[in-house]
Amino acid sequence: MKKLNVGIVGYGFMGRAHSNAYRKVNHFFDLKFQPVLKAACARSADSAKAFAEKWGYESVESDWRKLVAREDIDLIDICTPNNTHAEIAIAAAKAGKMILCEKPLGLNAKEAEKMVAAVEKAKVPNMVWYNYRRCPAVVLAKQLIDEGKLGRIFHYRAKFLQDWTINPDLPQGGAGLWRLDVKAAGSGVTGDLLAHCIDTAMWLNGTIDNVNAMTETFVKERKHTLTGKVEKVGIDDACAFLARFTNGSLATFESTRYARGHKALYTFEINGEHASIFWDLHDLHRLQYFDHRDEGRVRGWRSIHVSDGDQPYMKNWWVPGLQIGYEHSFVHQVADFLQGLADDKPAKPDFKDGLATDYVTDAVLQSAKTGQWEKVKKVK
Amino acid sequence: MKKLNVGIVGYGFMGRAHSNAYRKVNHFFDLKFQPVLKAACARSADSAKAFAEKWGYESVESDWRKLVAREDIDLIDICTPNNTHAEIAIAAAKAGKMILCEKPLGLNAKEAEKMVAAVEKAKVPNMVWYNYRRCPAVVLAKQLIDEGKLGRIFHYRAKFLQDWTINPDLPQGGAGLWRLDVKAAGSGVTGDLLAHCIDTAMWLNGTIDNVNAMTETFVKERKHTLTGKVEKVGIDDACAFLARFTNGSLATFESTRYARGHKALYTFEINGEHASIFWDLHDLHRLQYFDHRDEGRVRGWRSIHVSDGDQPYMKNWWVPGLQIGYEHSFVHQVADFLQGLADDKPAKPDFKDGLATDYVTDAVLQSAKTGQWEKVKKVK
Amino acid sequence: MKKLNVGIVGYGFMGRAHSNAYRKVNHFFDLKFQPVLKAACARSADSAKAFAEKWGYESVESDWRKLVAREDIDLIDICTPNNTHAEIAIAAAKAGKMILCEKPLGLNAKEAEKMVAAVEKAKVPNMVWYNYRRCPAVVLAKQLIDEGKLGRIFHYRAKFLQDWTINPDLPQGGAGLWRLDVKAAGSGVTGDLLAHCIDTAMWLNGTIDNVNAMTETFVKERKHTLTGKVEKVGIDDACAFLARFTNGSLATFESTRYARGHKALYTFEINGEHASIFWDLHDLHRLQYFDHRDEGRVRGWRSIHVSDGDQPYMKNWWVPGLQIGYEHSFVHQVADFLQGLADDKPAKPDFKDGLATDYVTDAVLQSAKTGQWEKVKKVK
Amino acid sequence: MKKLNVGIVGYGFMGRAHSNAYRKVNHFFDLKFQPVLKAACARSADSAKAFAEKWGYESVESDWRKLVAREDIDLIDICTPNNTHAEIAIAAAKAGKMILCEKPLGLNAKEAEKMVAAVEKAKVPNMVWYNYRRCPAVVLAKQLIDEGKLGRIFHYRAKFLQDWTINPDLPQGGAGLWRLDVKAAGSGVTGDLLAHCIDTAMWLNGTIDNVNAMTETFVKERKHTLTGKVEKVGIDDACAFLARFTNGSLATFESTRYARGHKALYTFEINGEHASIFWDLHDLHRLQYFDHRDEGRVRGWRSIHVSDGDQPYMKNWWVPGLQIGYEHSFVHQVADFLQGLADDKPAKPDFKDGLATDYVTDAVLQSAKTGQWEKVKKVK
Repeated sequence: MKKLNVGIVGYGFMGRAHSNAYRKVNHFFDLKFQPVLKAACARSADSAKAFAEKWGYESVESDWRKLVAREDIDLIDICTPNNTHAEIAIAAAKAGKMILCEKPLGLNAKEAEKMVAAVEKAKVPNMVWYNYRRCPAVVLAKQLIDEGKLGRIFHYRAKFLQDWTINPDLPQGGAGLWRLDVKAAGSGVTGDLLAHCIDTAMWLNGTIDNVNAMTETFVKERKHTLTGKVEKVGIDDACAFLARFTNGSLATFESTRYARGHKALYTFEINGEHASIFWDLHDLHRLQYFDHRDEGRVRGWRSIHVSDGDQPYMKNWWVPGLQIGYEHSFVHQVADFLQGLADDKPAKPDFKDGLATDYVTDAVLQSAKTGQWEKVKKVK
Repeated sequence: MKKLNVGIVGYGFMGRAHSNAYRKVNHFFDLKFQPVLKAACARSADSAKAFAEKWGYESVESDWRKLVAREDIDLIDICTPNNTHAEIAIAAAKAGKMILCEKPLGLNAKEAEKMVAAVEKAKVPNMVWYNYRRCPAVVLAKQLIDEGKLGRIFHYRAKFLQDWTINPDLPQGGAGLWRLDVKAAGSGVTGDLLAHCIDTAMWLNGTIDNVNAMTETFVKERKHTLTGKVEKVGIDDACAFLARFTNGSLATFESTRYARGHKALYTFEINGEHASIFWDLHDLHRLQYFDHRDEGRVRGWRSIHVSDGDQPYMKNWWVPGLQIGYEHSFVHQVADFLQGLADDKPAKPDFKDGLATDYVTDAVLQSAKTGQWEKVKKVK
Repeated sequence: MKKLNVGIVGYGFMGRAHSNAYRKVNHFFDLKFQPVLKAACARSADSAKAFAEKWGYESVESDWRKLVAREDIDLIDICTPNNTHAEIAIAAAKAGKMILCEKPLGLNAKEAEKMVAAVEKAKVPNMVWYNYRRCPAVVLAKQLIDEGKLGRIFHYRAKFLQDWTINPDLPQGGAGLWRLDVKAAGSGVTGDLLAHCIDTAMWLNGTIDNVNAMTETFVKERKHTLTGKVEKVGIDDACAFLARFTNGSLATFESTRYARGHKALYTFEINGEHASIFWDLHDLHRLQYFDHRDEGRVRGWRSIHVSDGDQPYMKNWWVPGLQIGYEHSFVHQVADFLQGLADDKPAKPDFKDGLATDYVTDAVLQSAKTGQWEKVKKVK
Repeated sequence: MKKLNVGIVGYGFMGRAHSNAYRKVNHFFDLKFQPVLKAACARSADSAKAFAEKWGYESVESDWRKLVAREDIDLIDICTPNNTHAEIAIAAAKAGKMILCEKPLGLNAKEAEKMVAAVEKAKVPNMVWYNYRRCPAVVLAKQLIDEGKLGRIFHYRAKFLQDWTINPDLPQGGAGLWRLDVKAAGSGVTGDLLAHCIDTAMWLNGTIDNVNAMTETFVKERKHTLTGKVEKVGIDDACAFLARFTNGSLATFESTRYARGHKALYTFEINGEHASIFWDLHDLHRLQYFDHRDEGRVRGWRSIHVSDGDQPYMKNWWVPGLQIGYEHSFVHQVADFLQGLADDKPAKPDFKDGLATDYVTDAVLQSAKTGQWEKVKKVK
């Protein structure tokens, strides 16, 4: 088994999710590569050290430039706030490292374009952590669509609803709250949550041609953790948009952090000529499926418990009926990345796919300003 | 259209449900008979009069014997407490009336045997109001079973859970509370709720051979509305039993009025070799269906919204997607009774079916006393 | 009890639903008025006669002008296609009749304005059949919102999904299919289905300021039943729009007849500062409610079975746990109308409310053409 | 951090689940002990080696006696078929090892009594892998019950339904199929599945006094993998029993491997005076809770998504809304065991608890033979 030395930048929520994936993947998947937790990097040396001890990283760095420069590192995993992705990724590409970057790829498409150029020039394997593509139920949806089970697609609708920022006393900025700080995040729910919805949507249903959006910031000012002052909130608290896919289907997308009762309710539904599909992150181990070709009297939405060996990834886990959870999507993504390396068939979504999503989010934010339909740029 | 003159005894919950059915049936079903609300009978003349005015009964009686004796009455509908069924029904049979009797048929099987003998001797059409057989979803279940879609049956389980008697201050006896008074009701949940479960079960899955039961009375004493005194409670508050069907399947049945959160949760599930079925009175317009012959990856419980024209009774109502409710089961029962008259194919369940259920409930109550398996008597 | 003589125009789906309501209302509600089914009117005398016999209308007309002219008629109920509402209603108003008109009020707001002017001039009681306001669960939602249980509203989303026109061989026009004929219907899902969503939304959440819409006609040509020729389809098969309410909340609305698996899935969700609500026409007897003020560990969406005596309208029906269905919303609307007459407090929604909805649908259709945000006209 | 050297016997489904738990626990929980995967033992040296490599066990044994004799082993984890538990555990106790034993504890209570005697004599920490006690939703149920939120308990009902043995061509015996072989398993669903239900039930609701059971073997003969011959099936395919708890509540329990559509549907429901609880292994991250003290109009079953930091174990995992799965129950059990070691407060369920469950399953199997109520022996 070949060792693959991982250097991770960032130690937050995603740092943990990725580390867990590297640690578990070889116990459940037969692969030719084994990730080695070589180095953890964080600006605070203490934080880096504590994180490295917890997860068994062999060494610590407090400057990502040093990490990127190390010869014993094969792969740079970027888990830092959005405004640092481009700089780190471009440097890592120049250093010839493989790169796994958290989503969204760039603060905006302009940054993302440079990142794509960098990895293409360096010819390094690259991937973006749009992990929901790897939930077994979502992969099952992809299979059914690709097999033509749905027929012509008429409608796509996706939502990502949360409620954690309703309290106006919640500050913006700093650890755990950088997603509220437009400088670190680039945008609000659009880049954070809708980016997930868009990535899945284009994977399942093809490219998006045009969008028409509205955004809102319900709480206009929040104390900033870093400055200590009450500052204007620059992010979008909520965003909804209409869209038209290239295949002629119509779509609605919506995201907010002001939907009481929903913690991380990412849902999508696809209506085709013959069949429909619905998925919900709160019950991610299930797929709802309606097949009009079933006999009329006994047609109904099927609640499929995706835990059987003939369903995506599931033969690698437990026995039928026993569900897996959120973290497993990351394990699957690492497994697919490693398998892609072995087969020389790079795993998706890569930086180009990440750029495609950034083109959509850029158009969405632009439309919210103009009040008009905006055309979405396509990746060449 | 032939007129069928109805004389109803009793004006409570069931009196209303039946009257509504007589009133509605010809608007929704094409039939050769039309029920005419000829007379309403209650011991209290005032109650009878108020009820008759509300529902448009043409006349009033305060003695059921007089009602039974009237020549202008074709059909006697018995909606009174259980301890009066036998006497009224036997008299009505002797008078040559058709009889629709509320369930359970008798206070016990001994009474029910006499009632069967009476209607057989008189050769009058007769039916028992086990209305849940007429919920469209339940009829759909029956169709699927009869067509062999389930294959060999392994398991049957039914429950009827309520919570309305948890409060120990609730009195027993009198209007609306006679179900707590063993003299009027004969038994508690066994005759009231389990009788429904048993009737449906034998209709769907054949006869029951043996039962093994336990009962409990949680609140031992309650004030009696009629005597004003605190008296021992004679009914069973809860009853659960194991059973073996003649076809080799195993069953569990349970009923209680002490299940917090359940108002009238009648559910049944049937597990067959190829397919399974689940139904729930709280969502009576749905049938849950699992078919193992579906392709493995997309197998799941189907939630069938029984509101389409090709599903039982539904072409007579609205349009697909629009649900009907509880009261419609009575309309269907009247429609089937009237159709049966026209075709000379008597509708079921008749008094013999009612007796079969009484044999089971008798065995259940007996088993609860003996702590042993009790054999169920079969109707000849 | 005062008699109220009803003359109905139209005998289709809605003719049946209304007739059933008139027939049932006094059996379940204590009212000072009793509707009398005086006359049924249809262009085809045979159809009118058959309908009258089925439902017990005392007489028949084949020209609505004659019906409107009859002195023995107190109330005209308009159940005909949309393009006839205005003419009949205006004539009925002039004749001093009360008017209950099917929705949408006019083919467009211009027509609806004239209808409002007519009833205001004539000072006749008037109502529009937006029946979903009378589902008990929806009324419960209204109570909770009005009591402030939700606090500030952030989001409203509504959908009305069907799948009955996916087949391109389905013709347009004629009995049962006039909803596909733009001349008879005025528009497609916008006036038919979204009108319901908009009426409920404004009742629950106040007026709408601006909308931004897209529409689509998936099947461009269909055979026309009346001409026998393949003709261009003029209606919208699908429509989705973004909206901003006057109270600052954001909304998404969507309707289609191309959503496989959904027969009549009208759903709405409201997210407030403290609580959220969800309702679904396919399980209309339930309300989903999330209250953030519940203790954290045991917070969850409550599935409320709206069948208890303390819930809207339910004390008039059966006992807790036993559900009612679609048709009951019409019974409630008639009950409220009659109660409003008795109390001299006209029931809602009246023609002015119907006009308000027409203003929204007009703006939606206009926006779909311009690709811009359109301001919604307000009723004075 | 202290090292705790683990020697595991068996490498099947449970061997993997336990190994995963040892590997993960310190990444997610702050503990004073760290399990070290010291040795894996299996009769087949090749199997042991492959397993050890996959999971990183440092060494291999092919005789459990040698493993037990090793001085560098602190803890013996028994994951072998039921008929080997007693011998290994007693030897391990004598050798002074801590013991974590798969359930059921013994082939029967007689064996289990000896195992309890052995660990008590040796004074070694011991635990039985009834892992469902550690699902966060189940622990939340326990908290609510212990706090008195349910009040007096009236009813308990549990089911564990599977469908994997319906095919009569499935053989009995050997790897993966020893659960069908009565010599290896001791019993069928009673010891395998109902044992889980009973353990949870007694933890939540106290001891059971009496039981009344029926069992069935639907497929009477199956080919035996080890002998190659068709042999009589000795296990129970299905078992249902009535029970009375010491606290006066009534219970029904049922398990089968012939319930089409259910892969591992372990459910329990508890009805108390004030509140009720329902849980379902197929959606193990949810708890259904009904609280009668909620305001009447908005009472309903709450679907609690157990993924918040204030819910059991969840602060150690991801963020609200992101679910965990089956395997996490084992991680929690190891975490609690290690915490118990540190605090000198042994974690439960220990061997005595395992014996208590074996007393119940023995009584259940006995009652299925006698057809009578059987008294359950209590652990002293």
